[in-house]
Amino acid sequence: MSNKIVLGIIGAGRIGKLHAENVVNNFVDVKVKAIADMYADKIKDWATDLGIENVYADYHDILNDPEIDTVLICSSTNTHSPISIEAANAGKNIFCEKPIDYDLERISAALDAVKKAGVKYQVGFNRRFDHNFSKVCDLVKEGKIGDPHIIKVTSRDPEPPSPEYAKVSGGMFLDMTIHDFDMVRYLSGSEVVEVYANAAVLVDPAIGEAGDVDTALITLKFANGAIGVIDNSRRAAYGYDQRVEVFGSKGGVTVSNDTPSSAILSTADGVFAEKPKYFFLERYKDSFVEELRQFFQAIKDDTPTPVQGIDGLKPVIIAIAAKKSYEEGRPVKITE
Amino acid sequence: MSNKIVLGIIGAGRIGKLHAENVVNNFVDVKVKAIADMYADKIKDWATDLGIENVYADYHDILNDPEIDTVLICSSTNTHSPISIEAANAGKNIFCEKPIDYDLERISAALDAVKKAGVKYQVGFNRRFDHNFSKVCDLVKEGKIGDPHIIKVTSRDPEPPSPEYAKVSGGMFLDMTIHDFDMVRYLSGSEVVEVYANAAVLVDPAIGEAGDVDTALITLKFANGAIGVIDNSRRAAYGYDQRVEVFGSKGGVTVSNDTPSSAILSTADGVFAEKPKYFFLERYKDSFVEELRQFFQAIKDDTPTPVQGIDGLKPVIIAIAAKKSYEEGRPVKITE
Amino acid sequence: MSNKIVLGIIGAGRIGKLHAENVVNNFVDVKVKAIADMYADKIKDWATDLGIENVYADYHDILNDPEIDTVLICSSTNTHSPISIEAANAGKNIFCEKPIDYDLERISAALDAVKKAGVKYQVGFNRRFDHNFSKVCDLVKEGKIGDPHIIKVTSRDPEPPSPEYAKVSGGMFLDMTIHDFDMVRYLSGSEVVEVYANAAVLVDPAIGEAGDVDTALITLKFANGAIGVIDNSRRAAYGYDQRVEVFGSKGGVTVSNDTPSSAILSTADGVFAEKPKYFFLERYKDSFVEELRQFFQAIKDDTPTPVQGIDGLKPVIIAIAAKKSYEEGRPVKITE
Amino acid sequence: MSNKIVLGIIGAGRIGKLHAENVVNNFVDVKVKAIADMYADKIKDWATDLGIENVYADYHDILNDPEIDTVLICSSTNTHSPISIEAANAGKNIFCEKPIDYDLERISAALDAVKKAGVKYQVGFNRRFDHNFSKVCDLVKEGKIGDPHIIKVTSRDPEPPSPEYAKVSGGMFLDMTIHDFDMVRYLSGSEVVEVYANAAVLVDPAIGEAGDVDTALITLKFANGAIGVIDNSRRAAYGYDQRVEVFGSKGGVTVSNDTPSSAILSTADGVFAEKPKYFFLERYKDSFVEELRQFFQAIKDDTPTPVQGIDGLKPVIIAIAAKKSYEEGRPVKITE
Repeated sequence: MSNKIVLGIIGAGRIGKLHAENVVNNFVDVKVKAIADMYADKIKDWATDLGIENVYADYHDILNDPEIDTVLICSSTNTHSPISIEAANAGKNIFCEKPIDYDLERISAALDAVKKAGVKYQVGFNRRFDHNFSKVCDLVKEGKIGDPHIIKVTSRDPEPPSPEYAKVSGGMFLDMTIHDFDMVRYLSGSEVVEVYANAAVLVDPAIGEAGDVDTALITLKFANGAIGVIDNSRRAAYGYDQRVEVFGSKGGVTVSNDTPSSAILSTADGVFAEKPKYFFLERYKDSFVEELRQFFQAIKDDTPTPVQGIDGLKPVIIAIAAKKSYEEGRPVKITE
Repeated sequence: MSNKIVLGIIGAGRIGKLHAENVVNNFVDVKVKAIADMYADKIKDWATDLGIENVYADYHDILNDPEIDTVLICSSTNTHSPISIEAANAGKNIFCEKPIDYDLERISAALDAVKKAGVKYQVGFNRRFDHNFSKVCDLVKEGKIGDPHIIKVTSRDPEPPSPEYAKVSGGMFLDMTIHDFDMVRYLSGSEVVEVYANAAVLVDPAIGEAGDVDTALITLKFANGAIGVIDNSRRAAYGYDQRVEVFGSKGGVTVSNDTPSSAILSTADGVFAEKPKYFFLERYKDSFVEELRQFFQAIKDDTPTPVQGIDGLKPVIIAIAAKKSYEEGRPVKITE
Repeated sequence: MSNKIVLGIIGAGRIGKLHAENVVNNFVDVKVKAIADMYADKIKDWATDLGIENVYADYHDILNDPEIDTVLICSSTNTHSPISIEAANAGKNIFCEKPIDYDLERISAALDAVKKAGVKYQVGFNRRFDHNFSKVCDLVKEGKIGDPHIIKVTSRDPEPPSPEYAKVSGGMFLDMTIHDFDMVRYLSGSEVVEVYANAAVLVDPAIGEAGDVDTALITLKFANGAIGVIDNSRRAAYGYDQRVEVFGSKGGVTVSNDTPSSAILSTADGVFAEKPKYFFLERYKDSFVEELRQFFQAIKDDTPTPVQGIDGLKPVIIAIAAKKSYEEGRPVKITE
Repeated sequence: MSNKIVLGIIGAGRIGKLHAENVVNNFVDVKVKAIADMYADKIKDWATDLGIENVYADYHDILNDPEIDTVLICSSTNTHSPISIEAANAGKNIFCEKPIDYDLERISAALDAVKKAGVKYQVGFNRRFDHNFSKVCDLVKEGKIGDPHIIKVTSRDPEPPSPEYAKVSGGMFLDMTIHDFDMVRYLSGSEVVEVYANAAVLVDPAIGEAGDVDTALITLKFANGAIGVIDNSRRAAYGYDQRVEVFGSKGGVTVSNDTPSSAILSTADGVFAEKPKYFFLERYKDSFVEELRQFFQAIKDDTPTPVQGIDGLKPVIIAIAAKKSYEEGRPVKITE
C-alpha cells in the first residue's frame, strides 16, 4: 500500500469528473485523496459517492498536502499554465489537460518550471491512446508501410460550437485542429515544418461573423519529407467523424469510425449500417483510461511520460502558423 | 442511500470476481457487502482492495444476513440449483450464472422455489446484452425485417477444451451451444419445436474419445414457422467467431465480429485486417456490466427481469434434444 | 483459321441468346455458324445483326452439318438429354445447359452416349466460374483453410416464381437448390453422403398449395467428414443474395454479394450502401463468358472439361434425396 | 440500318485497339468502317479478325471518306488538336482521347474549329463513367449530401513511369493529376478558382532528377465555396488506388477500390482481403464502353455530349496552375 500514488484532482468539470471516475474504477493502486473545484458544494455528493474524502474550493489545499504526490489539472484552459508552474514548484507529478495554453511564452514558462522541478508531466492528448490510432502508430513504427509519404487526418465534429464560444475559443485551429496537429506528429514521427491553411465558413455564417472558420483543409510538410493534410468540419450531419490514413513506400494503413454495433440491415430500401459513435466522450471512452494508465506507469517506473511537455507546445505553434497562413493566404514556415 | 441494493456474491472464481469488480466500478447505488468462497483466504486481499468488507468461506453467512437483499450465484454449476432454492427461501433476489443445472427436474425445483418466494430471478445469459446482438434483437422487434424466416448463429471458440473437461462438461450442446440455443430464442422471439443435430469430431480426436463432438450444425424449427441453424466449432484458427443473421419477409440483419481496431493495412502482400477479439471476457466485456444494470433496474422498478427462469430452462431442454438427435441420427421434437 | 471451333447453338431463348452474344463478342477463334430455334423467324434479325449466317427451325440441321464440331444445348430442359444423345452420336462436342434432366436414368443414358462417342461434355453450372466463388475454391485447394469442416451456402432469389411455374419446375430443390448442391461439391472437393432438408412455405402460400416449398435449410454430410448447410429463400426483399463460407482446420473464407458500386452514403438518417446486384444475368455476367472460355480451351487442348457429366448427375441425385428428406422428415443417405 | 453510325478510328495503339474492340463487341448499330495507324501492316490481322474492312496508314483516308460520319482520335497526344481541327473541318463527329493538348492556345483553336463546324465533340475522361464515381456524382446531384463542402480525391498509380517518360510527359500534374482535376470538377459541379500544390520526390529520385515530382497534395478552392484536396503518388505498393469522398452540409459519400473478388480469408495469421484491381484497363474496363455508349447516344439524339470541349480545356488550365504553384511555393488563382 505504501507505494500507492496519491492523487489530487484540480477542477471538477466534465473532464475532471470523468478522470476522477476513471481513476476510482480502474486503478486500485491510485488513491484519489482530494478534488478541488470553485463550486465545491455542488460536487460534494458526487465525490462522497465515489469515495473521495476531501473536496476543496481552493486547489492550493491540494498543492499544500504533502501526502499528495500527483495532480491532474482539469481546470479552465487559462489556468493550465499557472497551475502547472505552482504544482511543479510544489514537487507534484502533473497530468495537464490540453492545451497547456494558447500563448507560447506561457507554455514555455510552464515547461521550464517542470524541467527545473524534475517532476513528471503529461499533456492530455488522449486520442493517441485510442485503439484505432495507436494501432496505426504501431504499424508505422514497425515499418509496415515503409517511410511515410502522405499523412491524412479527417476530423469532423457532430455539431458546431455556438458563435459565442467560437469568439473566445482561440479559433478553430487552436480549439479543434490542435488535436489533429498532435495526431499528425504522433503518426508521422516527424515535425511539421510548413503549413498552408485553406479554410472557409460553410457551416454557420455566425461563426464567420465571430471571426472564425468552420471548414478547413490544412496542408503540411514534415521534416522527414512527408506531406500531410487535415480536413476539418465543425458539423458532420452523420456524427463524429474521426479517421486517419498513413501512406508510405511499402503501403498504407487506414482506420475508420467506430460504431455502436456492427449491425447491417438489408431491406428493399437499401443496406443500412450504424452511424459513427456520436460524441467524443463515447468515442474516446477507453482512451481516457489508457492515457492515465500510462501516466501512472511512467511515474512508477520513473520513465518518460508518453506525451511530454514539448508535445503540448508543438501543436500550439502549428495552430498559430495555420491561423497566420489562413489570414495571409500563403504557406507559413515553422522555424523553431 | 436507504434504497441501495445490498449484495452478496457467492463464488469468487473468474466470473464471480468479474461481477464483483463490475458492480463496485459501475453501480454507486449497489453495495457489495460480502463475498463467499470456499477458498476465502485466497481472495481476502483482492476483496479488501475492492472495498468489500466481508469475506466468508460459507455462503450461508450471506444468506443469513438480513441486510443483504440480493445475491449473485457464481459458484460451480452443480451448486446453482440448490443455492437458488436456499436463496429464494431466504427471500433474496437472485442473479444466477448459467446454466441453472443440467437436470431438468432440478431446474424446475429451483424455479418453483423462486416462484413461491416471489423474488427476482435472472439467469446469466450475458450475450443478450451484447451491443451487436441486442441491436439485432431490437431491429427484429421493431419489425424492420418483417416476420423472421431464417435464423443463423455462428459460434466458434478460439481453442478446444481439454478432453478431460469435455468428459465432465455435459457435452458440447450443454456446455457451448447452450448460449446459442438461448440466442435463437432471443432473436426469433419464438420457441424451438424441433431440433436436428449434425455433428462430427474434426478438431481433436481426443474429444471424440471422450464421448463428445467438436463441430456441429444444428437445424431448428420454431413455433412461429421460422427455421434456424447454429454452426459450432470448438476451434476457429483466427479466434472467437460470434456472428448472427436474422432473415425475414422484409429483409435481413447481420452482425460481424468485433475487432481490437478498425485498422486496414494494405501492402504488396495484400490487404490485412485485425482478427476478432480473441476471448469471451474481452469480446463480451460490456455485456457483463449491462446484464447487471438491467437486473438491478428490474429490482428497483419491481419489473420482470430480462432473462427469467424459463429462459434458463428452455436452452437445457433444447440441448438435451440436440444430444438425442445426434445420438439417434434423426430430428427430435420438443414436446413441452 | 483452320483450327477455329465451329459452333452451332440449339435454342435461342434468354440463355441461348446470351451465349451467342458472348461467343461472338469474346472469342475470335470460335465461329457461330448456325443457331436453331422453333421460332426461327423471330430471331432472324437478331442473328443477322450478330453476324450468324444460318438460322434453322430444326436443330437437326445443325447436327447434320459436318463442319460444325461443337454445339451448345440451350433448349428447354426436357430436351437436354435426348439432344445430348443425338449430338454425341453425331460426334459433336457438347456444352449442355443445366440440368441435364430431372430423371436419373435419362441423365445416365446421355452420359453413356457421350462416353461412347468420346466427345467433350460440359454442364452449364456457371457459378463455378464466378470471380467470388472460384476464388474461394482456389483458396480451399491451396490449403489456406486446411481441411474443410463446415461449408455454408446462402442462396436467395429476389423474387419468387409464379405458383404455375412452381408446379412444373420439379420443386425448389431441383429448380433452385441444384446450383447450391453443385456449389457445395465444388467448394468441398467431396461428395455429399447424407442430406436433411428442413423446409417451409413462408414466402407465398400459393407455392405451398402448388406442392412446393419456398424457404429451406438443407444440412449435408460429406464423404471427407465435413458438414454443410444451404439456406434458400425464394424471396430476399433486398435482392439476389449469393454468399458462401468455407471453414476449416486452419481458418475460414467468406465472400459477400457484389454491388453496383462501392458508394457509402452517410447522412443524419444513417449510413447507406447499395443493395446486391439484383438479377442473376447481371450478377453472374462474367461467369457465363468464363465457362465458355474454359470449355473452348478444353476442346483445343483436348483436356477434361471443368464441369463434367458426372457433375451434372450428382446435384440431381442430391436434390431428389433432399425432396425425400423433406417429405419423410428424416435425413436421407446417398448410396451411390 | 440506314441510321447506323459509321466510324473511323485514328490510331491503333493500346487505347485505339481497346475502343475498336469495345465498339465491335457492344454496339450493333455502330459500324467500324476503317482504322488508321502509321504501322498499318502490324494491325492488319487484328483488324481482319475483328471484322474491320479498311486499314489505312494515313488517317486522311478516313477523313476523306464521306460515309464515315464519326471519328475516334486515339493517336499520340501531340496530334490530338491538329487532327481535331481537320476532322471538324471534314464535318465528322469527334471523340478525342485526353488530353486535347498541353498548350492552351492549341486547345482553343481545336475547340473553335469544332464550334464552327457544329460537330459533336467528346473528350475521353472515361473515369466519369466509372460505376463508382458516377454513383457519387448522382448522389451529389440528387442533393443527398446537401451543398458540397469538401471534395477529396485519392489517386495513386501502382508503378511509377520511367524517368525518361517523366521527362517528356509534361510533368505529373499534366500527365496524371489531370484526371483528378477533371474528377473534382465533375464531382463538385463547380469550377476551380485557386490551387496550391504541395509536392515532393519520395518514390524515385530519378523522377526528381528528370525535373518532375512523384507525390503530391493539391489543395483547391471552388467557385461555389467548397474546398478540395487531391493526393497523388506515382507508386502505391498495394496497387492502383482510386477513391473519392464528397462531404457536404447534409452528409458525405465515399467510394472505395474495386477488388478482383470479395473473398475474406481469416487464419491464425490475420484477416486478408484482396488488393485493388491493379491496372487502369482492368479497373476502368466498363467505363471505356460506357463513355462510348453515351457519345453515340448524344449523336443519335443530337444532344450535348457528356464531356465537352470545355471539359478538356479546364483540367489543363488547372494543371498548369498547379505546376506554377509548386514552382513558386504559393497558391495560384485561376482567373479565366
